[in-house]
Amino acid sequence: MSVGSPAEEATGDRAFLRAMLDAEAALTRAQARLGTVPADAARTVTAAADPARPRYDVRDLALRARAGGNPVIPLIADLTAEVAQLEPEHAEFVHRGATSQDILDTALMLLASRTLDLLTADLARTATTLAALAAAHRATPMPARTLTQHAVPTTFGLKAAGWRALLLDAHDRLTVVRDSLPAQLGGAAGTLAAFAVGEGSGADGEAPLRLAEAFADEVGLCAAPFPWHTRRTPVADLAGALAFTAGALGKIAADVLVLSRTEIGELAEGTGGGSSAMPHKSNPVRATLIAASARQVPALAAVLYGSLAAEDERPAGAWHAEWQPLRDALRLTGGAARDAVELCAGLEVRPDRMRENLDRTGGLITSERLIAELAPLLGRSAARDLLFRAARYASEHATDLPEALHRQPEARLLPSRDRLHELLDPTTYLGAAPTLTTRALTRPLP
Amino acid sequence: MSVGSPAEEATGDRAFLRAMLDAEAALTRAQARLGTVPADAARTVTAAADPARPRYDVRDLALRARAGGNPVIPLIADLTAEVAQLEPEHAEFVHRGATSQDILDTALMLLASRTLDLLTADLARTATTLAALAAAHRATPMPARTLTQHAVPTTFGLKAAGWRALLLDAHDRLTVVRDSLPAQLGGAAGTLAAFAVGEGSGADGEAPLRLAEAFADEVGLCAAPFPWHTRRTPVADLAGALAFTAGALGKIAADVLVLSRTEIGELAEGTGGGSSAMPHKSNPVRATLIAASARQVPALAAVLYGSLAAEDERPAGAWHAEWQPLRDALRLTGGAARDAVELCAGLEVRPDRMRENLDRTGGLITSERLIAELAPLLGRSAARDLLFRAARYASEHATDLPEALHRQPEARLLPSRDRLHELLDPTTYLGAAPTLTTRALTRPLP
Amino acid sequence: MSVGSPAEEATGDRAFLRAMLDAEAALTRAQARLGTVPADAARTVTAAADPARPRYDVRDLALRARAGGNPVIPLIADLTAEVAQLEPEHAEFVHRGATSQDILDTALMLLASRTLDLLTADLARTATTLAALAAAHRATPMPARTLTQHAVPTTFGLKAAGWRALLLDAHDRLTVVRDSLPAQLGGAAGTLAAFAVGEGSGADGEAPLRLAEAFADEVGLCAAPFPWHTRRTPVADLAGALAFTAGALGKIAADVLVLSRTEIGELAEGTGGGSSAMPHKSNPVRATLIAASARQVPALAAVLYGSLAAEDERPAGAWHAEWQPLRDALRLTGGAARDAVELCAGLEVRPDRMRENLDRTGGLITSERLIAELAPLLGRSAARDLLFRAARYASEHATDLPEALHRQPEARLLPSRDRLHELLDPTTYLGAAPTLTTRALTRPLP
Amino acid sequence: MSVGSPAEEATGDRAFLRAMLDAEAALTRAQARLGTVPADAARTVTAAADPARPRYDVRDLALRARAGGNPVIPLIADLTAEVAQLEPEHAEFVHRGATSQDILDTALMLLASRTLDLLTADLARTATTLAALAAAHRATPMPARTLTQHAVPTTFGLKAAGWRALLLDAHDRLTVVRDSLPAQLGGAAGTLAAFAVGEGSGADGEAPLRLAEAFADEVGLCAAPFPWHTRRTPVADLAGALAFTAGALGKIAADVLVLSRTEIGELAEGTGGGSSAMPHKSNPVRATLIAASARQVPALAAVLYGSLAAEDERPAGAWHAEWQPLRDALRLTGGAARDAVELCAGLEVRPDRMRENLDRTGGLITSERLIAELAPLLGRSAARDLLFRAARYASEHATDLPEALHRQPEARLLPSRDRLHELLDPTTYLGAAPTLTTRALTRPLP
Repeated sequence: MSVGSPAEEATGDRAFLRAMLDAEAALTRAQARLGTVPADAARTVTAAADPARPRYDVRDLALRARAGGNPVIPLIADLTAEVAQLEPEHAEFVHRGATSQDILDTALMLLASRTLDLLTADLARTATTLAALAAAHRATPMPARTLTQHAVPTTFGLKAAGWRALLLDAHDRLTVVRDSLPAQLGGAAGTLAAFAVGEGSGADGEAPLRLAEAFADEVGLCAAPFPWHTRRTPVADLAGALAFTAGALGKIAADVLVLSRTEIGELAEGTGGGSSAMPHKSNPVRATLIAASARQVPALAAVLYGSLAAEDERPAGAWHAEWQPLRDALRLTGGAARDAVELCAGLEVRPDRMRENLDRTGGLITSERLIAELAPLLGRSAARDLLFRAARYASEHATDLPEALHRQPEARLLPSRDRLHELLDPTTYLGAAPTLTTRALTRPLP
Repeated sequence: MSVGSPAEEATGDRAFLRAMLDAEAALTRAQARLGTVPADAARTVTAAADPARPRYDVRDLALRARAGGNPVIPLIADLTAEVAQLEPEHAEFVHRGATSQDILDTALMLLASRTLDLLTADLARTATTLAALAAAHRATPMPARTLTQHAVPTTFGLKAAGWRALLLDAHDRLTVVRDSLPAQLGGAAGTLAAFAVGEGSGADGEAPLRLAEAFADEVGLCAAPFPWHTRRTPVADLAGALAFTAGALGKIAADVLVLSRTEIGELAEGTGGGSSAMPHKSNPVRATLIAASARQVPALAAVLYGSLAAEDERPAGAWHAEWQPLRDALRLTGGAARDAVELCAGLEVRPDRMRENLDRTGGLITSERLIAELAPLLGRSAARDLLFRAARYASEHATDLPEALHRQPEARLLPSRDRLHELLDPTTYLGAAPTLTTRALTRPLP
Repeated sequence: MSVGSPAEEATGDRAFLRAMLDAEAALTRAQARLGTVPADAARTVTAAADPARPRYDVRDLALRARAGGNPVIPLIADLTAEVAQLEPEHAEFVHRGATSQDILDTALMLLASRTLDLLTADLARTATTLAALAAAHRATPMPARTLTQHAVPTTFGLKAAGWRALLLDAHDRLTVVRDSLPAQLGGAAGTLAAFAVGEGSGADGEAPLRLAEAFADEVGLCAAPFPWHTRRTPVADLAGALAFTAGALGKIAADVLVLSRTEIGELAEGTGGGSSAMPHKSNPVRATLIAASARQVPALAAVLYGSLAAEDERPAGAWHAEWQPLRDALRLTGGAARDAVELCAGLEVRPDRMRENLDRTGGLITSERLIAELAPLLGRSAARDLLFRAARYASEHATDLPEALHRQPEARLLPSRDRLHELLDPTTYLGAAPTLTTRALTRPLP
Repeated sequence: MSVGSPAEEATGDRAFLRAMLDAEAALTRAQARLGTVPADAARTVTAAADPARPRYDVRDLALRARAGGNPVIPLIADLTAEVAQLEPEHAEFVHRGATSQDILDTALMLLASRTLDLLTADLARTATTLAALAAAHRATPMPARTLTQHAVPTTFGLKAAGWRALLLDAHDRLTVVRDSLPAQLGGAAGTLAAFAVGEGSGADGEAPLRLAEAFADEVGLCAAPFPWHTRRTPVADLAGALAFTAGALGKIAADVLVLSRTEIGELAEGTGGGSSAMPHKSNPVRATLIAASARQVPALAAVLYGSLAAEDERPAGAWHAEWQPLRDALRLTGGAARDAVELCAGLEVRPDRMRENLDRTGGLITSERLIAELAPLLGRSAARDLLFRAARYASEHATDLPEALHRQPEARLLPSRDRLHELLDPTTYLGAAPTLTTRALTRPLP
């Protein structure tokens, strides 16, 4: 749940306001570095661009944004008024040569960058927790389940190592994206023409390019090779990395939800939600909320990928359709990452229940090994047939499987009852699970 | 349109059959390399795994797949029968120790790898075409349009360079994914236990890991660090890269569709679709079909991202929901890439229409520059007001804008009519567009 | 844009709080009607359930909701405290026998119901505006465009009538859904067991059913035939109706965006957004924002449809994944409906530009009719060939098409120049467009 | 799984070819009815429009469709050739006045109509099966589960009745849509102009309207009030109804998947998929495949809803993006409906396992009732606290809960051990579940 999470704050209306003001101030400072705006004016604008100043009212800005269709237009008015109050002759330097999209896109990238810092830190914390869990349980046997049915034994360590590997994959993808988030500066339609005017001749267009680089540097983002008003690589990359991360967290949640079922009970959320009328209930609340996010973020990502196909130099709709889904995807994924920190830190692992569940099929969970052993003696198909018969016999006569096997016509071809007991011991049929776990854990934390 | 495209063939039922057979054969050869299967048997299985053999019937396999829920089960039966016909005692080595998912996932990765080779080659061809277009038109002026309205001038070269940059971004993303596509080998539930049995002691689990590496090598894919039955990074990465690519191609299509409108006419598909009753029609068919793909692939990607949150060691639904969307996303994106090759190769660029359209607003397309020039003389807001008045005057009195400006009360403060004509010339207000184009073209083709 | 729209308020956090309190109060009143709660207590709870009381703090509730995973749990605590302050012995009657989902689902339905009232009223207003536009322009000729190219003439009236018909379709679908929105009352897991306990014997279970009906009546929603905790018909129906409506509004926006392009200019938003540096710009802002909503709502609907497949008596994730997308879909669609009211009320229709554009192809826009006339004389294919040749001739020799036709070898077979002029008059080739418009307008407003 | 299902055939390429030919033939017959085409010609076209004729090659048509972007263009060529072979002078009457979209849209509606017939029949069969299951198990107790944990008892009958109600809801929605599917006839751009030409004066446009009605009648679909080339209500309605149905079926699958887990075992697919190496496995294959469909169809529906916002009289992309998703949604949902027939017909219900699972919490599954009984004696919070303590005591001392309760300090305030045993009996705490089941079953089959 994103409410109260750091990601909620980092993507909220106040954070967005701050990011837009940061972008406006950085633009003036960059222009001052290139000498097209007085250094004093850049200082005044930076001082005025403080979101704590009472003039800036998130709600009021939103309402005034309706007329022109974006919040930068009224924000410029407010910032200009604030600058004018500090130093009237500096007012003309606000937003000079820029277009609303320059500020809005840059602000979204700042928002994303700040949220991804929180998000990746939370993923790293969970990965550390999972590494410890995986190491501790590398050889803790539990049933592997395929299509809801017991298949063969595995270990909880391997499962936890798989969760961790997914989170590291998510971390890698988010980091690549975060490290490439660009500032936006293109002017009215991506030609930087108004900056060239400001620069004098503008003949070669190199001056506005240097401005774009200075702006990126001031605002703390990458410099794009050229304006990306309708080249939405950064937004699409965010979409993919966030959908990946929400899904990776969702895998953990999906497993916890299965394994904490009343009948299974191999895992429990340490601090599950309770019920006032049902004291036996301990709801896997964190896993539930992570699962809910994993259901939503891919759809938001689809909207963002859809906005790649944007016409012209600024599209009528595709761009506007990015703002909310991008912030929601950041918020939901960030909230899920925080939920996962809590979930994994408090996760109760119950090897006794795992062991108990391994015995639910009366040894049949190792039938793959048994058939492999019997196949050379009987043929594969006959071995399988025998096992079916014996399993039914064991169930009907309330006996164990080795005994039941020895009551079948093929008894004399079979290994001894003791050997059969050995073959049916699920704790010795873990395959490479412990080794795979250890190997997976050699992947370093980011 | 994917029909008849190389991607359609590469993702079709026959290609999928071939990929599954390739996976089965590679497994036996890998086992032969490790000595757990006779080399002769591996040769027999490889020979039998030829999709051209008449026993393999795509439709019949599909029908028989219903019972068990996947096509590998009946395929093993057919392959085993085919091997038995060649060499009866080799039949037992088919699919040894593997699970259906090992074969199916590996086959999907082969399919993806082969389709991405075609797709990236097509993107590279289009990027080359676009580089030439961008270079030729780096300074060809045309209207930049924002929210459907003329904004300021830009150049067609910058637009084409932007298209190319998006395709290179797509190429980069697809290449990263293609170069990491892994083979799948995990056995019944990802522990490789059956391979350990086959290997003898299996105590340390290293032998099955070597098998997994040999298998990847034989089949021509990467070796995964450990089985990824429910760690669906490769599928999610494909989803993202394909949605990105479909969207990148969709951006080109969106622009072509706007610019080839009857009233705009700045571009035309060289070989647009005709109409028997309307000889004037030349439909932008390739752009239309690319646009249609761009609308579909993000939704398919959302399904694939949703399958990351898969429970257990093999989920009941999430895995099965990957097969068709993944193949469809490959097919649609590959088809769109081929359409783009044809679209861009045949694209007619009409600088005369661009020039004509630049004049539609009677010079106002450069009003940003005019106001920048007048603002120091009149103040920004007064300059803007003057321009509004003059524009109305020009329209009502059928005169040009410089003349109209000089009929206003502020006339004596204004630059000369000649200077105004210069300022209103759209071809000299291209900003950094030509420079940005040149810079963008320094990015090398992949 | 939903900000500041009635739908935004109707779906906001305060509205949701109010709806939850309404549900709690209605439950107590329903119980009072059945005699299981004192009438006095119901009055106290109703008085305490006033969202204006200072104890209720939207933000604080959201934060406290994290622990248990839903906001009803802390709300009950607050409501109980508020009741206790008014009348201590009535505190025990708060939320008696209900589960959090009863309250939350009922509150969501209330929210939906209230928002749909606003939404359908706005659709009806727009439909009325469009009826007037369609009637006024039933025979106003304009180019019909297919695949971006002029096809044949149509009328603006027919286009406006088509918009209206889509909105009426949306209105119908929303009304059906709104009139069936049910209250939720099932108790812990949909068996109403706790209400049966409260009722005494409960043997036949009829008493709790009567309670469910009384509750629906008190809260102003329909009575469901039985609890729908995991039978999510109402939510899925809302999803579909809202996606339909957002798309229907999106159709209007798509057309307005095309037709207000600088080069086309057949429509203009009366109060388009301006640009401080580009006085010629009049951005179709309302259409842009409607288009942005149309891109988002289908994805939200997909999440909601996905939540139909919910396991158990309350799912761990699917239910939680409904809350935000449902409110967002209501808010976005409601905002778009309000934008459409403004868009259509202020829409400028420019028959002169339509007429001008009809002539862009030099008469070829009626080539369908010309070929139909010439085909009996020349054969269809020869007629088409002739027209191609003549069109080229006309362009090269700057003559008109009738003249050009008569310069071709087939001249003596052709109708007179005058007749050709008649055939090429786009204003007389409107087909059934005026009649279809009139017919479409016979569909009554809802 | 749609392979081999009736829906697969009904939506396949051959079925689509047949539907397009049906549409062409119906058009000629309708024109014959109105006297604009000779009756003989209509008969010839109808005879020639037989998909079994060898000239029609699905694959070849698809390949030739690339050039013009839709399959109708080459199909008309083939049909014309076929007619010409039968009766040369009738060739000119093929496709007269129509546009490709008229035929393609009508064919898609035919395809939809035919598939929905199969689909609704399958839903009705499953609803009948479920009615019997619900009636038989109206009072069969089983644990209700919320957020994966046991909550209170419910009955399997109520669960099955809930499944049935969802299917009836789906049936209702599909039926409404199927009964309104319209034929499409608009000519080049929806004005029916070419039909008016054919009709003579065309002054009032009534003749083409009569043709549209005759066409709908001949082809067996509804008559639309006016052409719907870009008024995509029928497609959007199909999207919603199919996403609803896939989700409704997905709810059944989700429950079956949980309840057939090895540890739960309350349900089993009668003919689950087996595993050659794991004889104990009986995979819920049908439920798995239904679940896979439920994950895909909402995304396809989102694409279709997205196509509502289609520009102009025929959009460049939005229309083309409907064809495949619509056919896929029909196929997947139809396949899932057939899977559900098999799933429900063979479903094994295991009341013994349900009973066994009810005891897993040692009686705590009825704690809601126990607390309701103890609350008046101890206060609600004290009662809850007591129950917690007693539950822990029972677990530690291996005693039952009544005994444990009487070992607590509050013992003397408690009901007798016998009464406690009664209160803890899950089979007597079914609430209104049996009554609700009976009530739900009064809803008639469609």
